[in-house]
Amino acid sequence: MESDFIAWLRKRLPSHPLLRLGPGDDAAVLRLAGDAECAVTVDLLSDGVDFELSKVDPRRVGRKALAVNLSDLAAMASKPLAGVVALLLPRQGAMELAVELYEGLLPLAERYDLAIAGGDTNTWPGPLVVSVTLLGQVAAKGPLRRAGARAGDRILVTGSFGGSILGRHFDFEPRVQEAMLLNERYELHAGIDVSDGLSRDLAHIADESGCGAVIRLADVPISDDARRLAAERADGVLPLDHALGDGEDFELILAAPPEEAARMIREQPLDVPLTDIGEFVDEPGLWSLNESERKNKIVPRGWEH
Amino acid sequence: MESDFIAWLRKRLPSHPLLRLGPGDDAAVLRLAGDAECAVTVDLLSDGVDFELSKVDPRRVGRKALAVNLSDLAAMASKPLAGVVALLLPRQGAMELAVELYEGLLPLAERYDLAIAGGDTNTWPGPLVVSVTLLGQVAAKGPLRRAGARAGDRILVTGSFGGSILGRHFDFEPRVQEAMLLNERYELHAGIDVSDGLSRDLAHIADESGCGAVIRLADVPISDDARRLAAERADGVLPLDHALGDGEDFELILAAPPEEAARMIREQPLDVPLTDIGEFVDEPGLWSLNESERKNKIVPRGWEH
Repeated sequence: MESDFIAWLRKRLPSHPLLRLGPGDDAAVLRLAGDAECAVTVDLLSDGVDFELSKVDPRRVGRKALAVNLSDLAAMASKPLAGVVALLLPRQGAMELAVELYEGLLPLAERYDLAIAGGDTNTWPGPLVVSVTLLGQVAAKGPLRRAGARAGDRILVTGSFGGSILGRHFDFEPRVQEAMLLNERYELHAGIDVSDGLSRDLAHIADESGCGAVIRLADVPISDDARRLAAERADGVLPLDHALGDGEDFELILAAPPEEAARMIREQPLDVPLTDIGEFVDEPGLWSLNESERKNKIVPRGWEH
Repeated sequence: MESDFIAWLRKRLPSHPLLRLGPGDDAAVLRLAGDAECAVTVDLLSDGVDFELSKVDPRRVGRKALAVNLSDLAAMASKPLAGVVALLLPRQGAMELAVELYEGLLPLAERYDLAIAGGDTNTWPGPLVVSVTLLGQVAAKGPLRRAGARAGDRILVTGSFGGSILGRHFDFEPRVQEAMLLNERYELHAGIDVSDGLSRDLAHIADESGCGAVIRLADVPISDDARRLAAERADGVLPLDHALGDGEDFELILAAPPEEAARMIREQPLDVPLTDIGEFVDEPGLWSLNESERKNKIVPRGWEH
């Protein structure tokens, strides 16, 4: 089916100023900008792990496969430039599925002005696998890394957390514009996007930065989804637990020096809320502060790959 | 296992001048060269389709996953720069398998001075899937495309064809240096690497170029593997049939104007033989010339994705 699919794709893909040569040759050719550094990220999603194809519109799968990569570029405060898509499709209905996956990801690509340069399309007897690789342009300031948080920095987060399994893990908006705007306008020391879970990804920043982090539990923004999930399941897992551990929120966690963080919180420059949930500290590990200000060591929860 | 694997990878990956930031963050960061155009290619290999993991050293699988992508860059006459690797590993023994795959691909990466920037590592209950994305630098002349052959151009090939299933489909040397040298030193109109089969990939060049191609059968370089396979199987499939249809030879097919082609054949500038096997013609389709100079229309054979 690959030649039929490439014929479809050549008609369907919009032209893009970065794309000198699109699908159908041995490689795509991009006109990348002059001297800027280039961020590269790849994420592979598979049926049964990241989605259940039997239960979801394939367009949402295609969209998610691109969105998780855009979120990685956001975490580096990099501007999305171009991407390639590798598909491994179940043989039955492969062409239709490939078209639906692209119909899901292309609107998101257009929204972020991303050039889709084609990719590789294969069939096999197994379940669907989608791998997307994106290139992004690093900001003039350099990449926003995980390492870089310092003791005393505030922990800021975009949006709210928990319960993404109810649907948001497909339909979230990657924080690309938000990350670029914050990185340009403020001094940020470190950043990550929340895929594994708020507590686990915060621990990643702290570990990479050689410090610890204290979360003020009362300040964690809990999503309506987290409350709904806790109520539906009624299994004793609190909305706060969902917020700390569920993962796939694809919000940003940022480290910023205290005065800068105060200014960000005061100015609220984004459409989505920016919340201060604690601080980075010298002592390694992850800590929580409850309402009586008692500090407890906590174990990061969330998705362990 | 991903965090353990990333820890291993950070120690194992050699530093590289292009690699500003390697594995372990949300994206890798590359220092790409100034104004050159960038070739991007991705190839995804899966157990049962491109290899049988139960029958082969995983290091050969890792090497092949990289080599097929290098061959795509060769087909564009582009210089390999950097790559990312996405793995989907069976849960049982995932870490060991990931290490072996990298131990197979890293020596080949070093040989071509390719920066491996890390990637994505996942586990699941299914078979092994490996997806590699490479970036290459397009030559100042521009990319060597499939489209561009003209009626009257000669068909030149590197090496010999057929029987790669006996082992060469794992251990072939991608024609990276050869393609760059030929593209720099001679006027080439079009090029492709042979993955699907000599006749099918020649048909790809002809179709994309809006012309046809005539193969002089007596001049097709038949590999020893093709002869061995035909003798072993003794099923009436001739060595020539293997050469035309087997695929995964990863040799180059090139289109060059007649005087230039004659010069290339005379000078033999490569370590591997360069052979003239026919010409591109106005009339569309694929044709063969037998020893009595009778022209027959032939159907491209080989791997249909």
